[in-house]
Amino acid sequence: MRILVVGMSGHVGTSAAAALGERHDIVGVSRSTDPAVDLLDPASITAAFRRLGRFDAVVSAFGAAPFAPAPQLTADDLTAAFEGKVLSQLNLVHLGLDAVTDGGSFTLTTGILAREPVPGGAAAAMANGAVESYVRTAARELPRGIRINAVSPSVLASAPEYFDAFRGFAPVSDERVGLAFVRSVEGIETGRTYPVD
Amino acid sequence: MRILVVGMSGHVGTSAAAALGERHDIVGVSRSTDPAVDLLDPASITAAFRRLGRFDAVVSAFGAAPFAPAPQLTADDLTAAFEGKVLSQLNLVHLGLDAVTDGGSFTLTTGILAREPVPGGAAAAMANGAVESYVRTAARELPRGIRINAVSPSVLASAPEYFDAFRGFAPVSDERVGLAFVRSVEGIETGRTYPVD
Ligand SMILES: NC(=O)c1ccc[n+]([C@@H]2O[C@H](COP(=O)([O-])OP(=O)(O)OC[C@H]3O[C@@H](n4cnc5c(N)ncnc54)[C@H](OP(=O)(O)O)[C@@H]3O)[C@@H](O)[C@H]2O)c1
Ligand SMILES: NC(=O)c1ccc[n+]([C@@H]2O[C@H](COP(=O)([O-])OP(=O)(O)OC[C@H]3O[C@@H](n4cnc5c(N)ncnc54)[C@H](OP(=O)(O)O)[C@@H]3O)[C@@H](O)[C@H]2O)c1
Repeated sequence: MRILVVGMSGHVGTSAAAALGERHDIVGVSRSTDPAVDLLDPASITAAFRRLGRFDAVVSAFGAAPFAPAPQLTADDLTAAFEGKVLSQLNLVHLGLDAVTDGGSFTLTTGILAREPVPGGAAAAMANGAVESYVRTAARELPRGIRINAVSPSVLASAPEYFDAFRGFAPVSDERVGLAFVRSVEGIETGRTYPVD
Repeated sequence: MRILVVGMSGHVGTSAAAALGERHDIVGVSRSTDPAVDLLDPASITAAFRRLGRFDAVVSAFGAAPFAPAPQLTADDLTAAFEGKVLSQLNLVHLGLDAVTDGGSFTLTTGILAREPVPGGAAAAMANGAVESYVRTAARELPRGIRINAVSPSVLASAPEYFDAFRGFAPVSDERVGLAFVRSVEGIETGRTYPVD
């Protein structure tokens, strides 16, 4: 398969690309590649697909949300989480649909905060929950047998800078995170969220 | 208890107010009351709390999201669903927190689309999932013992105009929807979503 991985240079993207790269051709993009893809800039997504052509699978390993205790979350914080984790990834689905081959797939990234609370995580939780619920319904409406799933990891062992925010959570290996992307891309399921924890 | 119900004139708001009104003092507001509360206009929320004073419970029975097949959902549609169902209700929490008494509660409204797909429902599903995941984390961070839950009904028997969108779903009675709000307001739980289906 020919697979696009957005955010391949990140922790999750590296895990996904390493596992998928064993058997597939990977094209990795982000804001700092050529072509540059900024998921918050729809024109950059459209331009990239025009230049890169068609893919059997599109993987998004990007998401950003502010951390703050729930009572302090402003409308701007919540909007930033929506744009950074939800709209960014759904832009990729909406604008990338025509570039995915029949029977191909999208795999988005959420995270354990959708199901387990940590201090300051309400905005990220909100955004993860949004993506997971979207995936469940959208899966039934994508054309040409195209599938869509989400991978929802706990904190990655390779991301120790986040351990303070996830005290008591068992870090998950890059290998197990990579397997969840493989399962989504090479499996037959759709509308699912694959937890990795 | 003194209870604020935003959207009391709607289907869900009527159910909530009828059940809660049996034992409590209800103040119902919306865009067409005095004071007018528009959950998309933060200034109107702040002004209303200043005028109406403190509440033991705040109920939101409002939410709006566009319906369209997932492949057709534009960034504007997804943003409208976020603002109409998520930001609107979380504005109420953020701006109403100081007006809720110690040990009081917020109860928000989501809907069955977070867990069951219907045609055209992906944007609403996304928004419902966002609210439910937010509630789960925010519950652990609200001050002064304030609780927060969501009520997630299937289509209401009193809303036949929505039956076409929910073919095969058993409509739920106003009474059962009202009970879920009573359970949230008068119970001791927090961070929960109460399904009614
Ligand atoms: N790390 C973890 O332990 C962990 C665990 C569970 C869930 N997650 C979730 O997984 C997602 C990715 O996290 P991560 O830790 O892998 O992030 P990361 O290490 O910061 O990597 C982010 C990747 O996305 C790219 N990127 C940043 N902004 C972008 C934009 N606007 N458009 C396109 N690409 C962009 C970055 O490259 P450029 O800077 O070149 O654009 C980079 O490749 C987040 O939603 C996070 O919450 C992470
Ligand atoms: N009806 C159902 O069967 C059903 C089932 C499950 C879930 N739900 C969900 O429950 C929520 C409410 O649905 P509903 O059917 O009860 O709606 P509805 O009958 O249309 O009533 C909406 C209520 O909210 C008020 N309102 C509208 N816009 C507002 C705004 N910007 N700020 C404050 N108040 C506003 C309306 O009064 P004004 O026009 O005076 O402002 C009205 O009181 C929605 O999220 C819906 O998805 C409904």
